[in-house]
Amino acid sequence: MTQTQVPEQMTAVVLDAFSGAEALRVEQRPVPKPGKNEVLVKVAAAPINPSDIATLAGRYGFKPELPFTPGGEGAGTVVAAGPGAMGRYFMGKRVACLWGGQGNGVWAEYMVASTRGGVLPLDDSVSLEQGAMSTINPMTAIAFTEIAKKGGHKAIVLTAAASALGQKVNRLGRSEGMQIINIVRRDKQVEILKEQGATVVLNSTDADFCEQLREACIQYDARLAFDAVAGPLARQVLDAMPPHSKLTVFGGLSFKPAEASPDALIFKSKSIGGFWLGPWIATKNPIQILRTWRRAQKLITSDLKSQIRTEYPLEQAKQAVLDYQGQMTGGKILLRMDSQ
Amino acid sequence: MTQTQVPEQMTAVVLDAFSGAEALRVEQRPVPKPGKNEVLVKVAAAPINPSDIATLAGRYGFKPELPFTPGGEGAGTVVAAGPGAMGRYFMGKRVACLWGGQGNGVWAEYMVASTRGGVLPLDDSVSLEQGAMSTINPMTAIAFTEIAKKGGHKAIVLTAAASALGQKVNRLGRSEGMQIINIVRRDKQVEILKEQGATVVLNSTDADFCEQLREACIQYDARLAFDAVAGPLARQVLDAMPPHSKLTVFGGLSFKPAEASPDALIFKSKSIGGFWLGPWIATKNPIQILRTWRRAQKLITSDLKSQIRTEYPLEQAKQAVLDYQGQMTGGKILLRMDSQ
Repeated sequence: MTQTQVPEQMTAVVLDAFSGAEALRVEQRPVPKPGKNEVLVKVAAAPINPSDIATLAGRYGFKPELPFTPGGEGAGTVVAAGPGAMGRYFMGKRVACLWGGQGNGVWAEYMVASTRGGVLPLDDSVSLEQGAMSTINPMTAIAFTEIAKKGGHKAIVLTAAASALGQKVNRLGRSEGMQIINIVRRDKQVEILKEQGATVVLNSTDADFCEQLREACIQYDARLAFDAVAGPLARQVLDAMPPHSKLTVFGGLSFKPAEASPDALIFKSKSIGGFWLGPWIATKNPIQILRTWRRAQKLITSDLKSQIRTEYPLEQAKQAVLDYQGQMTGGKILLRMDSQ
Repeated sequence: MTQTQVPEQMTAVVLDAFSGAEALRVEQRPVPKPGKNEVLVKVAAAPINPSDIATLAGRYGFKPELPFTPGGEGAGTVVAAGPGAMGRYFMGKRVACLWGGQGNGVWAEYMVASTRGGVLPLDDSVSLEQGAMSTINPMTAIAFTEIAKKGGHKAIVLTAAASALGQKVNRLGRSEGMQIINIVRRDKQVEILKEQGATVVLNSTDADFCEQLREACIQYDARLAFDAVAGPLARQVLDAMPPHSKLTVFGGLSFKPAEASPDALIFKSKSIGGFWLGPWIATKNPIQILRTWRRAQKLITSDLKSQIRTEYPLEQAKQAVLDYQGQMTGGKILLRMDSQ
């Protein structure tokens, strides 16, 4: 094993039960050892994402055995490598690290990550803070616009559009000449997006929301929607789009099943599917992944930049999660492992 | 125009408002004249289908201008033809006739039908009674098994499985070695299907229905469902099937939106779509349509045979519809135009 000096013990966040932030605690744990095709990352920073909140509640796509360290993404420096050529390649490098749902996640001072997709080299232009948030949202925003382009779409409907992801989709879409029909649920969020240059922002609590949406979908021929909300809003969006449209659910913020009217499905040939970043990436070969990753890195300081609202030291992870849950828009919350 | 002797006036059912059976009346109307690529059919019999009930309520895929004659399918003899080679070909022939949603439907003594898909020649072995019911349900049953086979499926989940259509899908599926996982909502319906040879029939009102369904879907690797009910049942079926499964809605008997859990869509790559017979047929070229039709005709006296529960003269159409709505399983109700 190749390694620089690594301590025996580390500070790590641990989840005890699938009951959300309240089940989080911070403790000292042994620093893990990288196995074959794995590296050890000294983590510098990690954001809190909606997918982390779902993981804490046991509602995410993977559900590890308790107790475990959560945290879907972050960034740091590779300080040790297990056997395998790729591990040696990454030694000493600044990387974004991703948790695949096996073992433990990123919210710790050290994390073991797979060299097969679990670590990605950071561009020199990207800070560790931005690097920590450079995978999940940026790659998802790229995925949405790529899916839209492949399907020949010039417009997409986006719900929860004022989120960190939503803002990235707007900037990226605009750069590529794609019309985003934004749906939010507060006037304040309408303002935020319009200040950033969005031209179509609808408030789903408006009395004539469905009519506005229908008109916008016709005007821009919007036949593809990305929906983070599900529930009745999914049905409203599907109903508003022209025949042969597709709604892609990527979140369940309403905590309700996605709805679709039988008429829309049967007589208008509309459909509902889902999007998850991991399987989308898995459809690509390594060269395509690297190309997409490099593109994302180049845009991290512009279209795909994340705003940071607050930083918390790792020890205050529970408080950070509670803060995030109280306000999920207006900039990301970052956990800092290197703040001492 | 080629024609045999045709009267000036005819008896026809007319719908006055989209308020169901109550808005039906029977009146004398002029016999229509076939135009280019059209024929006049002297209708012998027509069934009442779920799609007719939806049409009377204004909830079907087409919504003609009121007042109009409803009726989606029937059978009779071509007695007049407008200009066009196909019209002459059909003169004097026994045909199944289909309403495309333009003009008036089949529930009349005479009906104008398009030679481009609105009339199909009946096989000599098929009576006018069976011929009247030989299009919508038989072709739908064939479509389901064809879609399943094309997708490499060896099993399908079917809701409202004791319906006239459901029974056909069971017989046809069994002939083709396909496992049908039947879902009904009454014990009586479980009995009916089991008596007919179905091996897996689940009652959705059973306390452990979801568990039973999940086990059956795993056992038979059922990744395709055809659902006539929508509502929460759609979600239960989708949740029970393995990853990458698809639910195809073809009816909305629950009068509720189809539901899907975001988890199933996002993390299990499941999807929901719809099925409508017309567009499915339209994906085929004329030779494929004729081949499918001939296949259906050959099976009309066996796998695709319809049971007849009662016959009503055309004049009693309203009563017939009310009777059908009171009991939609246990054989079709047929309107007879030739009963005098």
